Amino acid sequence: MELQFKLKAYFKTGADPAPAKEAVTALFEEANNTLLTRGAPEGQGAKITEWKLGEDRIELVLESGRYVRVHDAVLRLKKVLVEALGKRYRIGIRGIEVESFIIQVPAERELRMLKVPYIKSMENIEGGIVLELEVGEAEMKNRVPDRILTLLEEKIDAARYGAKAEHWNLIWQREPMEHPFKEDPTQAMMKEGWLKRGASRGQWIHGPQSTKVFRTFEKIVFEELLEPLGYREMIFPKLVPWEVWMKSGHAKGVYPEIYYVCPPKTRDPEYWEDVADYYKVTHEVPTKLIKDKIGEPIGGMCYAQCPPFWMYVTGETLPNDGIPVKVFDRSGTSHRYESGGIHGIERVDEFHRIEIVWIGTKEEVIKCAEELHERYMHIFNEILDIEWRKAKVTPWFMAQEGLLGLAEGNVVGTTDYEACLPYRGENGEWLEFQNVSINGDKYPKGFNVKLQSGEELWSGCSGVGLERWAAVFLAQKGLDPESWPEEFRKRVGELPEGIRFL
Amino acid sequence: MELQFKLKAYFKTGADPAPAKEAVTALFEEANNTLLTRGAPEGQGAKITEWKLGEDRIELVLESGRYVRVHDAVLRLKKVLVEALGKRYRIGIRGIEVESFIIQVPAERELRMLKVPYIKSMENIEGGIVLELEVGEAEMKNRVPDRILTLLEEKIDAARYGAKAEHWNLIWQREPMEHPFKEDPTQAMMKEGWLKRGASRGQWIHGPQSTKVFRTFEKIVFEELLEPLGYREMIFPKLVPWEVWMKSGHAKGVYPEIYYVCPPKTRDPEYWEDVADYYKVTHEVPTKLIKDKIGEPIGGMCYAQCPPFWMYVTGETLPNDGIPVKVFDRSGTSHRYESGGIHGIERVDEFHRIEIVWIGTKEEVIKCAEELHERYMHIFNEILDIEWRKAKVTPWFMAQEGLLGLAEGNVVGTTDYEACLPYRGENGEWLEFQNVSINGDKYPKGFNVKLQSGEELWSGCSGVGLERWAAVFLAQKGLDPESWPEEFRKRVGELPEGIRFL
Repeated sequence: MELQFKLKAYFKTGADPAPAKEAVTALFEEANNTLLTRGAPEGQGAKITEWKLGEDRIELVLESGRYVRVHDAVLRLKKVLVEALGKRYRIGIRGIEVESFIIQVPAERELRMLKVPYIKSMENIEGGIVLELEVGEAEMKNRVPDRILTLLEEKIDAARYGAKAEHWNLIWQREPMEHPFKEDPTQAMMKEGWLKRGASRGQWIHGPQSTKVFRTFEKIVFEELLEPLGYREMIFPKLVPWEVWMKSGHAKGVYPEIYYVCPPKTRDPEYWEDVADYYKVTHEVPTKLIKDKIGEPIGGMCYAQCPPFWMYVTGETLPNDGIPVKVFDRSGTSHRYESGGIHGIERVDEFHRIEIVWIGTKEEVIKCAEELHERYMHIFNEILDIEWRKAKVTPWFMAQEGLLGLAEGNVVGTTDYEACLPYRGENGEWLEFQNVSINGDKYPKGFNVKLQSGEELWSGCSGVGLERWAAVFLAQKGLDPESWPEEFRKRVGELPEGIRFL
Repeated sequence: MELQFKLKAYFKTGADPAPAKEAVTALFEEANNTLLTRGAPEGQGAKITEWKLGEDRIELVLESGRYVRVHDAVLRLKKVLVEALGKRYRIGIRGIEVESFIIQVPAERELRMLKVPYIKSMENIEGGIVLELEVGEAEMKNRVPDRILTLLEEKIDAARYGAKAEHWNLIWQREPMEHPFKEDPTQAMMKEGWLKRGASRGQWIHGPQSTKVFRTFEKIVFEELLEPLGYREMIFPKLVPWEVWMKSGHAKGVYPEIYYVCPPKTRDPEYWEDVADYYKVTHEVPTKLIKDKIGEPIGGMCYAQCPPFWMYVTGETLPNDGIPVKVFDRSGTSHRYESGGIHGIERVDEFHRIEIVWIGTKEEVIKCAEELHERYMHIFNEILDIEWRKAKVTPWFMAQEGLLGLAEGNVVGTTDYEACLPYRGENGEWLEFQNVSINGDKYPKGFNVKLQSGEELWSGCSGVGLERWAAVFLAQKGLDPESWPEEFRKRVGELPEGIRFL
C-alpha cells in the first residue's frame, strides 16, 4: 500500500461558474502539470482526478501522495481561481467546503483508534490504515492533516521498533579501576547520618555533610569549567507554564512524569474558609474538596531546567558579536514523577542540577560542546578520579530516519556520561550521571530566536546532576574522606559535623 | 451570655443497672464536687444536673463552662463507673451514646453557618450562637468539640478585630538618608536589560547582572553572618506534602496562596497517549482533560521554606551537647499565589531566599536571634548602607489574648526589617525585606522533637529574601555601580555583561 491522500471538496462561488467553464478547464489541466507538482520529486505531486461545475460551486476530487498533499493543493488552486475568475468573470470564490478527506497509510500492524479531534473514522485494513478526517478550510490551512499523519506514522514506527529503543555508541572509556568500597552509597549515607528521606516520594533532606559534598561539586564545576569557559550565571524560573513546553516541544509527550501545578481559583480567604475549617475540626486535609477548588493545571514544576531560560531570548535577534551566548543556572530543584518503589539518590523525584546552555552558530555550538567535554574529562579523571565512559545516544527514530544519530558526520544528539556503581557488581548497570547535548536548531526555532547575520542559530545544553555525581563518586570512593582523591579533598576541606540524635 | 456546654447522653450497660442505684447515686454526688471540678478554677467545672437509670443504660445530663468541658467530664465518669460497677456488680459499661451536644457561645455579631463536619445546626440568637453537634464517644475522645469551639471563637474574634490587623512596634530606626535615585528599580532593571518577565505570573528571569547582585547578597550573608555564627548548610526539600504543613500548622490556613502540586495518576504512557495526541494534532494543551487525569493535590510548592527541614528532626531527641542546631538552606525557589496585577520584583509569585533555622533551649534561641540582629545591622549599615528600621509585629489575636506579642518580657514573635523605597515618595509604604522570628516551642512540639535533658526546646527562623534585598538596595542606590557603597562594590566585583539584543 502506498501513502495516499484523497480530498473531495468544492469551491463555493458567488455566482454560477458556467460562463467560466473553459477558463476552469484550462486552469485545472495546466495545474495538474505545474502548480500541483511544484516542489515535488519528478512524477509526484497532487492531481485533480475529477471535477465538475454546479450552480454555485466548482466540485473536485484531488489525490496525492506525500508531496503537495491534497490540502496544500486545494489551497494553491483556490489562489489561482480567485485570480482567474474574479478579474475576468466577476465570480468570487467564497471558500472551500470539504465533503470527504481520506488518508491511507501503509502499516504492518493494526493500531488502536486514535482519540484525537478531527478524526471521523479509522479503520485497519490489509497492509495499512484508512483514516477519514473531519476538517474544513481552516484546519487545512492550519496543517491539521499533516499533524495527524505525523502522529500516525510515529505510532506505526513505535509499534515497529519499540518506543524506548535507543542506539548507544561508546565514544570513550577510562581504563578499569579497583573499587574497594562496595556499599550502596545511599544506605551508607543514611547509616552515617548524612541525609534522611523527605516526606514526599523520591525526596531527600540533605544534612550538612552531603550538602557540603554537593557544594564542592558545584565549586569544581564553577572553577574548572564555567569560569574558565566564560559562562555567566542566570536565574531560570522553576514553575514552567504550558507556553514554555509548547515551544520547547516537551508538550508533545512529557505528561507521564510531570508534577503538575494548579493555582487556587481565587485567593479570597472566604472561598477557602471551608477547607481551613474542615482541617481545623477533623485534622484531615480535604484533598478532594481542594481539587474542586483549584484551577486547571497551568503547567508543572521544573522538569528539564533549560526551557524556561528560552523565554528570555524568545522573539529576539542576537547581534553577531553577542554570540555565543553561554549561561548557566543552579537556582532550584527539578522534579520528575519517577517509577515507584524505594530508590536511593541515584533515582529521585526531586533533584539538583547545574544546567548549562549555549547558543551560537553551528560551528560555535559544536566548539562549546567540545570544550565542555574536555573540561569534564579533566574533572572526572583528575579531580574526582572515577571510572567512567561516554556514549553517543540516539533515539531509535532519529537513527532510523537517518536524519540524525549515528550517520557519519552528524553532530546533533546527546552524549551520556556513565559510571559503574561497584555495589551493583561487575555486570551491574552503569549510571548515567551527566550529559552534553547538541540540539541543532530545535530551540532557536521553537522559541523564534534569530541571528543578525541571518545565519542559522543552534544551541546545546548540559546538565550536571548533583545527586548523580554524588551517587557515582560515593559509590566508587566511599564516605571516608581519607580514601577520597587528594584533588577532591583539597577542595572539600573539612566535612562539617552532622546533626546528631540520641 | 456565658459560654456553656450541655450534653445529654447515656452509658450503655451490659445488664440492668438497678442493683447499683445507690452506688451510682453516691458516685455522681461525689463526682460533682471532686472529679468534675478537678483542674477547674474554684466554683467552676462540670456538673451532672439530671440523671436516671434505664433498663440497659444510665442516662444523664452534664453542663459545663470552659473548664472540665462536658465531653471530658463524661469520659472521666465512664472511667470511674467502669471501675465501680464492674468489680462489685458485674455490670459492664459498653460505651457512651450521645443524645444531644449543645454549645452556647457569646458573640456580638452574627456568624455565617460553618460548613464543617459534626455540626448538626447553628443558630444566631440574641447575644450569641447556639451550636448542636453530632458527635459520638470517639469524637469526644478526639476533642472534636474543643476544635469546633476554638474555630468558632477565632471567627468571633476575627469579626471583632478584622483578620489582618497587626500590632506594629518600632524597635530601631536608622537616621534618614538622602536618596538621589528615584526610579522604580524593576523598571530600571528592565530598561537596562538586567531581567525579563517569566512566562508565569509574578515570575522573573534574571540576566547575568541581577543574578550577580543576588549572589553577592548571598556571599555577604555567608561571610558576614552564617560562617562567623557557625550555621551549617543543608538542603531542604521543595515539594511540600500535607504531612509537613499539618505538623507546621500551615494546614490551618495557607490555602489561598498555595501553588498546588498534583501527580499524574499513573506514569503509564498509554494512559497519557490521548493527551499527547490531542496536543500534537491541535497544538493546544487539553488542560481540562489533564485535570481529570491527575491525582488530588499531594501538597504544594515550597511556601515558607523551613517546614520541610523539620522532617529531618521529627520524632528525634537531640543530645544536650548537640544544641543549638544552626542550619540554613538556599537550594531552591519559594512560590506564593500573590494578588494579581503587575508588580515588580518587590512582590513576586516565585522568589529566592536563604532560610536560616535554629533550635535550642529558650535562652539559646533568644541569643541566636540577638546575634543575627547584630549581624544584620552590620550588613545593612556598613555594607549595603541603606535606610531601614525594624519593628516587632504581632498578629492581633496574640496581642489581644495577652499571651504573646507586646506584653513586657515576651520574646516570641516576629521582627520585621523594613526599608523605604524612594520612588514611592516620602509617605510611600516601606517594604518588609527581611525578618527574624522566635517561634517558641511551636515547631519542636508540632514535629515532636525533644531534648535529652527534658528541657523545653524552642526554635527560630529568619528569611533573607533576595528579591526583597534587591528591591530595597537598588531602589535606594540605583543601578550604577559607581554610586554603590564601597563595601558592596568591593564584594560584587565587576558586573558581567548582559545578554544583548538588536
